[in-house]
Amino acid sequence: MVTIREEEVLERIDRARSRKARLREDAVTLAHGSGGKATHTLIEAVFREAFANPRLDRLDDSAHLDLNGTRLAFTTDSYVVSPLFFPGGDIGDLAVNGTVNDLAVSGATPLHLSAGFILEEGFPVADLRRITDSMSRAAEAAGVDIVTGDTKVVERGKADGCYINTAGVGLAPAEPSDVRPGDAILVTGPIGEHGVTIMLARGELDIEADLVSDTAPLNALLADVRAACPGGVRRMRDATRGGVATVLNELASDAGAAVVVDESAVPVRPAVRGACELLGIDPMYVACEGRAVVAVAPEAEEAALAALHRHPLGAEAAVIGRVREDPPGLVLLKTAFGGTRIVDLLVGDPLPRIC
Amino acid sequence: MVTIREEEVLERIDRARSRKARLREDAVTLAHGSGGKATHTLIEAVFREAFANPRLDRLDDSAHLDLNGTRLAFTTDSYVVSPLFFPGGDIGDLAVNGTVNDLAVSGATPLHLSAGFILEEGFPVADLRRITDSMSRAAEAAGVDIVTGDTKVVERGKADGCYINTAGVGLAPAEPSDVRPGDAILVTGPIGEHGVTIMLARGELDIEADLVSDTAPLNALLADVRAACPGGVRRMRDATRGGVATVLNELASDAGAAVVVDESAVPVRPAVRGACELLGIDPMYVACEGRAVVAVAPEAEEAALAALHRHPLGAEAAVIGRVREDPPGLVLLKTAFGGTRIVDLLVGDPLPRIC
Repeated sequence: MVTIREEEVLERIDRARSRKARLREDAVTLAHGSGGKATHTLIEAVFREAFANPRLDRLDDSAHLDLNGTRLAFTTDSYVVSPLFFPGGDIGDLAVNGTVNDLAVSGATPLHLSAGFILEEGFPVADLRRITDSMSRAAEAAGVDIVTGDTKVVERGKADGCYINTAGVGLAPAEPSDVRPGDAILVTGPIGEHGVTIMLARGELDIEADLVSDTAPLNALLADVRAACPGGVRRMRDATRGGVATVLNELASDAGAAVVVDESAVPVRPAVRGACELLGIDPMYVACEGRAVVAVAPEAEEAALAALHRHPLGAEAAVIGRVREDPPGLVLLKTAFGGTRIVDLLVGDPLPRIC
Repeated sequence: MVTIREEEVLERIDRARSRKARLREDAVTLAHGSGGKATHTLIEAVFREAFANPRLDRLDDSAHLDLNGTRLAFTTDSYVVSPLFFPGGDIGDLAVNGTVNDLAVSGATPLHLSAGFILEEGFPVADLRRITDSMSRAAEAAGVDIVTGDTKVVERGKADGCYINTAGVGLAPAEPSDVRPGDAILVTGPIGEHGVTIMLARGELDIEADLVSDTAPLNALLADVRAACPGGVRRMRDATRGGVATVLNELASDAGAAVVVDESAVPVRPAVRGACELLGIDPMYVACEGRAVVAVAPEAEEAALAALHRHPLGAEAAVIGRVREDPPGLVLLKTAFGGTRIVDLLVGDPLPRIC
């Protein structure tokens, strides 16, 4: 199918393969927090360099550890979303759902969370209560509890109201199986709603849209899928920073295979599509906080999709593409116009601080 | 011994007992991050209110969880120390040692850490490398690894260079036993060095002193003590924000007993004592990052002290006081002048952002 620009594709592949993680900047930029190419470079050139160990080397959403024969999943995320409150959620439920989802997509059962607050002097206590109430409700909805925490306060102008870190632990299953050619790629629902909602909530764009964040805990939904096709789920990832495009690139890169996506199959709500057009961004790169990408074996495709459709959070799930042998490590998008283009990692950050 | 101001003591006890966690402020203040009375009020009135569950209710340095029969210890801390680099350490080893110590004082064996970075746009990559190298060395020294992480970048002026959250997991022992009247109270070394070092490193005071931070991993030292007196160690806490005085108040409050400390027995280096005099603060409230308070059964006192003395990090350990029945919940200090005063939780924060 990829006949139109085959030469360009092969050239890009060569470039992609020869890419080395070299950090050219002397200072941290917003792009380093984007989840895209700059983030990957920072991770490779600084963090992986310093902390090298086999568990971190996997760079999965959560680390799986063996403690006295118990398989533990362990993950962390900091949340710096601006604004703190937005349609459909706030930094509090985002911080709970995000970490619950990082555990869930690794196949683990999320159990307990930690919460670390960095508060700016002068932050309204009423806002803090609103956030902690929201965290409490989100934790209850996800079936987890917050068991340990920490609070730091910094002077005015040294933070932006409230930053939250959550770490989470859960029970991990056996090692996930690898993504293979032939596997189907599913998304659990329409993409980009969280990112566009945040962007609009900042009020800088004078666009109104009837949109709310998709922030939600995915553990029950993903447990249903795994139960519906035992052994058929190869890999799951939540499409947060960098969106579905970034997740697909990670899957392709990990599998050493290509992911071919049918653009017309990707569920995008009209309001998201419209806002993205006005903003000049591709919904494929826009963060979700309650959507996952699931790779399943071909024989499990039907059962997986049916299981997703049975759950409210997966009602609009869709098969969006398939894994194939070549070109390894790349994501190709078959456009509505019959062309094919490469969906690469983003270099910059079109939407800073969306989580 | 508490004869001099018995009436005042009893009055204070009544007031202490009737104290309710009521948050009077509408906005977060630096005192809420001090580790003292304001922090306790914030935790009680906001966090415990929202997240109420039996594990969090313990408010220990780490939560102990049962996962499939494995006893897991889980803890978190954010680090916002200013300056980032100081004599004897930096935010990196502080973030590793602090979380290692929170696990170690709960009797757990620290195993794996997460690391979440919040970076300010423009932060020098060279400084970030220095911090991650320091984390890596600290992790190696403590025998733990960093297995999962996250990076966020915020705009200039929305952070202060670099904030780090670490969470940690480890294997927990059986439930610690309770502190009882008769128990001896030990500190593992001279107090207040970290806090005073940070204060002087800010360069605002024009005081020079030959001091370095005490930041160090305490897991090996505390494991030695536990091995030397099986069942004899009642409780351990690292004396970070709020210093030894705050830890002693927590012990007294948890045990519903009094802690009586002999001021002359508390090890304080002359440079710390001198700087504290100039700053008008009590070394008992100054943070350490490599010292713990250990409560041991009377019959274990000698063995515990000997074990501490055998380890380089415990060479200057000392017995500083004892637990007794009355007055419950209070810490009394027998001063060098023969008087006795109550050592209460601090209301304000004499040294913000020391960790």
